[in-house]
Amino acid sequence: MNHSAPTQNGLQSCIEACSHCHQVCLQTAMNHCLEAGGKHVEAEHFRLMMNCAEICQTSANFQLSNSKFHQRVCEVCAEICEACAANCEKIGGMDECVKACRACAESCRQMASMKS
Amino acid sequence: MNHSAPTQNGLQSCIEACSHCHQVCLQTAMNHCLEAGGKHVEAEHFRLMMNCAEICQTSANFQLSNSKFHQRVCEVCAEICEACAANCEKIGGMDECVKACRACAESCRQMASMKS
Amino acid sequence: MNHSAPTQNGLQSCIEACSHCHQVCLQTAMNHCLEAGGKHVEAEHFRLMMNCAEICQTSANFQLSNSKFHQRVCEVCAEICEACAANCEKIGGMDECVKACRACAESCRQMASMKS
Amino acid sequence: MNHSAPTQNGLQSCIEACSHCHQVCLQTAMNHCLEAGGKHVEAEHFRLMMNCAEICQTSANFQLSNSKFHQRVCEVCAEICEACAANCEKIGGMDECVKACRACAESCRQMASMKS
Repeated sequence: MNHSAPTQNGLQSCIEACSHCHQVCLQTAMNHCLEAGGKHVEAEHFRLMMNCAEICQTSANFQLSNSKFHQRVCEVCAEICEACAANCEKIGGMDECVKACRACAESCRQMASMKS
Repeated sequence: MNHSAPTQNGLQSCIEACSHCHQVCLQTAMNHCLEAGGKHVEAEHFRLMMNCAEICQTSANFQLSNSKFHQRVCEVCAEICEACAANCEKIGGMDECVKACRACAESCRQMASMKS
Repeated sequence: MNHSAPTQNGLQSCIEACSHCHQVCLQTAMNHCLEAGGKHVEAEHFRLMMNCAEICQTSANFQLSNSKFHQRVCEVCAEICEACAANCEKIGGMDECVKACRACAESCRQMASMKS
Repeated sequence: MNHSAPTQNGLQSCIEACSHCHQVCLQTAMNHCLEAGGKHVEAEHFRLMMNCAEICQTSANFQLSNSKFHQRVCEVCAEICEACAANCEKIGGMDECVKACRACAESCRQMASMKS
C-alpha cells in the first residue's frame, strides 16, 4: 500500500480500471443477464450490476475532474465492486465481470488510501 | 406549437418533464419490473426503460447547461419516450410510466421545434 | 434524527432534494458562473459545483434504484454538498445554490443515519 | 462508408472512441481550461467541452446496452464532437482534444450510417 501523494500514473490507471469496470458491468447486465434470465435478472443481482456500473462512472468522472473528493468516491466504489464481484461469482458464468470488479476494487482501495 | 424562441418558462417546464420521466422510468424498471419478472424483464422492454431514463437525464442536463445542442437531444429524447410509452402500454400495469413518457415526449417535441 | 428504517416518504423527499440540488448546481455553474467569470470560474469553485451536481445525480439514482448502498452514497453526497454550500457562501451571489446544497446535505445525512 | 450491419468489432471500436473522447474532454475542461482561464473558460467553449463529454458518455452507454436507438444518439454525438473539435482548434493548445473529438465524430458517423 502506497501512502505517498497520488501520482499522475496511479490516477490514470485507476481511471482506466473504473472505466473498464463500468463498461463490463453495463454490457454484461444489459446483454448477457437480460438474455439469460433466471438468476441473472433477480433484483439483488441486477441492481448490483447497474449500481456498480454507475458508481464506477462517477468515480472515473471525479478523478478526471481532479476533485478533492475523489478518494471518498473511490472508497465507496471499492465496496460496491467487491459486493458485485462476490455476487457474480456466486451466480457464475460472468468471469470477465468478476475480474473487472476485483481489479477496480483493488485500484480504488489504493487510491482511497493515498495521502491527498 | 410555438415557433418563437424558447422562453425561460418553456425551458424550465421541459427540464421538469425530462427529470420526472427519468425518475419514473428508472424507479419502475429497478423496482416494479425486477420484482414482477416475466415480460417486465424481457430484453426489449428493460432496455427501453433504461435507455429512456438515460436520455431524459442527458436531455435535462443539456437544457440546464444552456447547450446550443439541446434541441437535437430533445428530438431524440422524444422518439425514445414515445417508444417506451408504447412498449409499457403493451405490457400493461405501468400507467404512471406511460403518462410520464408521453408528457416528456410532447414537451421535448415542442422544445425541438422552437426556433433557436 | 430518525433511526428507524427509511420510509417511502423519507426516500422520496431525499430523492427530490438530490434532484433539485443537481439542477441548481449545474444550472448555476453553466450559466451564472461562466457568464460572471472571475472567482466564479476559479478551479476550486467550479470543480465543487460540477462535482456536487454529479454526486447528487448519482445519489438520486441509487435511491431510485433501491440500492443497498444508497446510504453510503448519501454520506459522501452530504459532505460534498456542505463543502459546495460553504464555498458558494464565501464567493457570494449564489443564495439559491447555498440553500439547495444545505437542504440536500441535511436530507442525505438523515438518510445515511437511518438503520437499513 | 460501410452500410452492412454493425459488426461486434465496429461497435466495440465506437464505444472506445466515445469513452476516450469523454475522458479527454472532461479532463481537459476541468484541468487545462479552468487553470488557463481566459478564452478557455468563456461560456461557449466551456459548454461545448462539457456537452461533448456528456453526449459521448451517453453514446457509449447506449451502445454498451445494445439500444435500438444507439444510431440516433451516435448521429447527435458526431455533430457535437465536430463542433467541439472546431472550437478547440480555434482557441488552440488543445490538440489531444481536437484529435479525440475528430476520431469520435468519424466513428459515430460510420455507426449512424450502418443499416440496423
